[in-house]
Amino acid sequence: MSTPENEQNQAHSFYGASADLVKALMYALHEETLDHARTLIAPLHAADLADVLENLQPEYRAKLVELIRPHFDPDILNHLDDSVKDEVIELIGTQDLAAALSDLESDDALSVIEDLDQTLQREVLRAIPAEERAILEEVLTYPEDSAGRMMQREVAYVPTFWTVSDVMAHLTKSQDVPASFYDVFVVNPKHQPVGSVPVCRLLKQKSDTPIEQVMEAELYKIPVTMDKEEVAHVFHHYGLVSAPVIDTSNRLVGMITVDDVVSVMEEEATEDIMHLAGISESDFHAPISATFITRFRWLFVTLINTALAVFVISQFQHTIEKLVALAALMPIATAMAGNSGMQVVTVTVRAIATRDLRPANLLRSFRKEISVGLMNGLLFAVIIGLVSALFFKSLGLSLVLGGALIFNMAWASFAGIMLPVTIHKMGLDPALSAGPLLTTTTDVLGFAVFLGLASLFLI
Amino acid sequence: MSTPENEQNQAHSFYGASADLVKALMYALHEETLDHARTLIAPLHAADLADVLENLQPEYRAKLVELIRPHFDPDILNHLDDSVKDEVIELIGTQDLAAALSDLESDDALSVIEDLDQTLQREVLRAIPAEERAILEEVLTYPEDSAGRMMQREVAYVPTFWTVSDVMAHLTKSQDVPASFYDVFVVNPKHQPVGSVPVCRLLKQKSDTPIEQVMEAELYKIPVTMDKEEVAHVFHHYGLVSAPVIDTSNRLVGMITVDDVVSVMEEEATEDIMHLAGISESDFHAPISATFITRFRWLFVTLINTALAVFVISQFQHTIEKLVALAALMPIATAMAGNSGMQVVTVTVRAIATRDLRPANLLRSFRKEISVGLMNGLLFAVIIGLVSALFFKSLGLSLVLGGALIFNMAWASFAGIMLPVTIHKMGLDPALSAGPLLTTTTDVLGFAVFLGLASLFLI
Repeated sequence: MSTPENEQNQAHSFYGASADLVKALMYALHEETLDHARTLIAPLHAADLADVLENLQPEYRAKLVELIRPHFDPDILNHLDDSVKDEVIELIGTQDLAAALSDLESDDALSVIEDLDQTLQREVLRAIPAEERAILEEVLTYPEDSAGRMMQREVAYVPTFWTVSDVMAHLTKSQDVPASFYDVFVVNPKHQPVGSVPVCRLLKQKSDTPIEQVMEAELYKIPVTMDKEEVAHVFHHYGLVSAPVIDTSNRLVGMITVDDVVSVMEEEATEDIMHLAGISESDFHAPISATFITRFRWLFVTLINTALAVFVISQFQHTIEKLVALAALMPIATAMAGNSGMQVVTVTVRAIATRDLRPANLLRSFRKEISVGLMNGLLFAVIIGLVSALFFKSLGLSLVLGGALIFNMAWASFAGIMLPVTIHKMGLDPALSAGPLLTTTTDVLGFAVFLGLASLFLI
Repeated sequence: MSTPENEQNQAHSFYGASADLVKALMYALHEETLDHARTLIAPLHAADLADVLENLQPEYRAKLVELIRPHFDPDILNHLDDSVKDEVIELIGTQDLAAALSDLESDDALSVIEDLDQTLQREVLRAIPAEERAILEEVLTYPEDSAGRMMQREVAYVPTFWTVSDVMAHLTKSQDVPASFYDVFVVNPKHQPVGSVPVCRLLKQKSDTPIEQVMEAELYKIPVTMDKEEVAHVFHHYGLVSAPVIDTSNRLVGMITVDDVVSVMEEEATEDIMHLAGISESDFHAPISATFITRFRWLFVTLINTALAVFVISQFQHTIEKLVALAALMPIATAMAGNSGMQVVTVTVRAIATRDLRPANLLRSFRKEISVGLMNGLLFAVIIGLVSALFFKSLGLSLVLGGALIFNMAWASFAGIMLPVTIHKMGLDPALSAGPLLTTTTDVLGFAVFLGLASLFLI
């Protein structure tokens, strides 16, 4: 019986991959009670089955793949994390994979194929029927991460001179219309899109109206070479549900729908967050060894940075010997500047990603960051100077610390916006490279300026 | 004439708010050539006009708002950053704002109204016609950040016993159908949704087929109280374009569409990234004073943290006086652990946000993080121990540093996953609180363990 409560629970437990289910499934796989295992996974959506695969240990993962191989739904692959996807593809094998891919729409099949390594990609393509292979091979010629790789070739389009009833008849009967679409695109005789009509609005029109009078002429066309981040921005900015993709001659070659954009947005956000901390985007599901290696790399950069700082400090050993309070106080100058600089880096990286930072407001942002940096530097110089004067009873020491703070926090603000902007201009990912570069400068400068001023004025 | 190149350029310059346009507009506003200013902004989409408003200095912003007031498009407000939105709303005034809001769909009007402060909200609501006000006031009773606040009340729904042609006739003629929709929901006599049909698929059906045979019964219903982050996850996970919203009696009360979800995803990603660095999500467009205050707050937390570290170090002044190399080496133990811990915090915060981290795999994640932490700790202990032995010619010093590194990096890994998970369980935002807590422990422990071991074994 369906009481309000359990209906509510049902709605909350969309996530088929509950801990209980995974446990029951593992037990069934372990005991080789395969019919029971099949019953357990039968009601799961491909996305949930992907979750289950991600959460199983490798030995059970292999057993589960064996179980689903006969009716393998390739859509599962599109929901898998990269490292688990590779494992599952290897288990499935070329022939079964190719057979499964033939059933997908071109964009979904492509998103599996484009990530395969060269040899495997060629093998899989060879096993796919000629007609579908031709489409996939053509799409593979578009640059990675471009709109061409995101689009599906199947589009609903009609000529400008049709009436609403012509269009309706076409959509009702033609075999060429994709299984799922939200807008019908209107094309001129050169096959260039000139307008669009949402399907829901089409229903409201009188049947003898020319489609040209119904369509919206303000059309957001996506060039086939546009970067997928840019595509996501256009969709978000203008609230689009689908958009036509055009080639260099402005001809309609495909369509991008919002569900692909949602995936791109999630990926890009994960990438930015992870890269800011020096982690690869697939870190969470990666095996221990892969995680260990990528994290080691970033920590090694941290080590080089810290070694520079150690070198700077060791140049002032005699100064510190004479005034040990310097050793206790020196982390302040670097920690404050490092954190304040990372704030600026983070807001800059995000503003670049969301297209909020543009040439039009770059100068203003620079001025703002440096003002805020100076204000905070001054304020903290006063606070910390007063406290350290009380604690260490030395006006000179307070002045030196305050001076070092102001200089270093102003520098951190300047570098915090300058570094990601420059790295982005060079065509590199600002998130990936801005952090350690910044911290190296704030650490080395922080120690050098504080200890340098101290050795000049206090010793 | 439309050459391929300038078509391509046109497609690339969707962003009407180019630096040149902003410059020309500022000049026109400055010179009070208002007709020219009107011509400049006329072709802009609401989203682009919002960009322009964000990028103008406050004085020009006020002039531009005066200019667009007579035909103010309230959709502009939904594209504005919070701090600029408040400013524009104040300039527009209650009466004009209420008039403009009456034209929006309920979800879009609500997203403006819900952010107003209590007094202003009441004033604006009073100025809105009674019928629309009733809907808005009802929606405002749903919890903030819930599905109820995201949904629109206007839904296309039909009873189970209709045929395809009944449905088509309804969609074609009824005034109750929303302006834009992608799925028609099928409801039982209790007004509970039991299935859905995408509009594009409806066209392909024979007209005498009962809608019950056409509909998809696997329906992802959104409870009206579901958190909007959860809603975004369900949409992304199952690739939905629209979903029915249900009340506690499982009755259909509204619909959420994917464009709202795209906004939520972008907001949540920005929030996570910003909070990890201790910045408010609207930092980029906030005025200098607001940015100064929020950043000051976080830096003050950093200061407290650093003050604890300073206190710990100052307890070991005598140890450092006897062996100044300790002062030079001590940043290593804290920097390595701090960075390694922030990696774990970042991956954990993101995995919580994307629902990749669940009770089902929590234990496994713990084990993984601690293994990786220990492996990196051991490896860096060896590398750094060897280098410092060569440089400072003291085996004891190397052993002490290595030991401190292993301990502190293992602790950082444990705390890096434990802190965000615990804070999330307490119903707080893990991104907001995990960073400074972690760094405080790694700094204080790092200095204490390294200097403590040194004073025990080396002095």
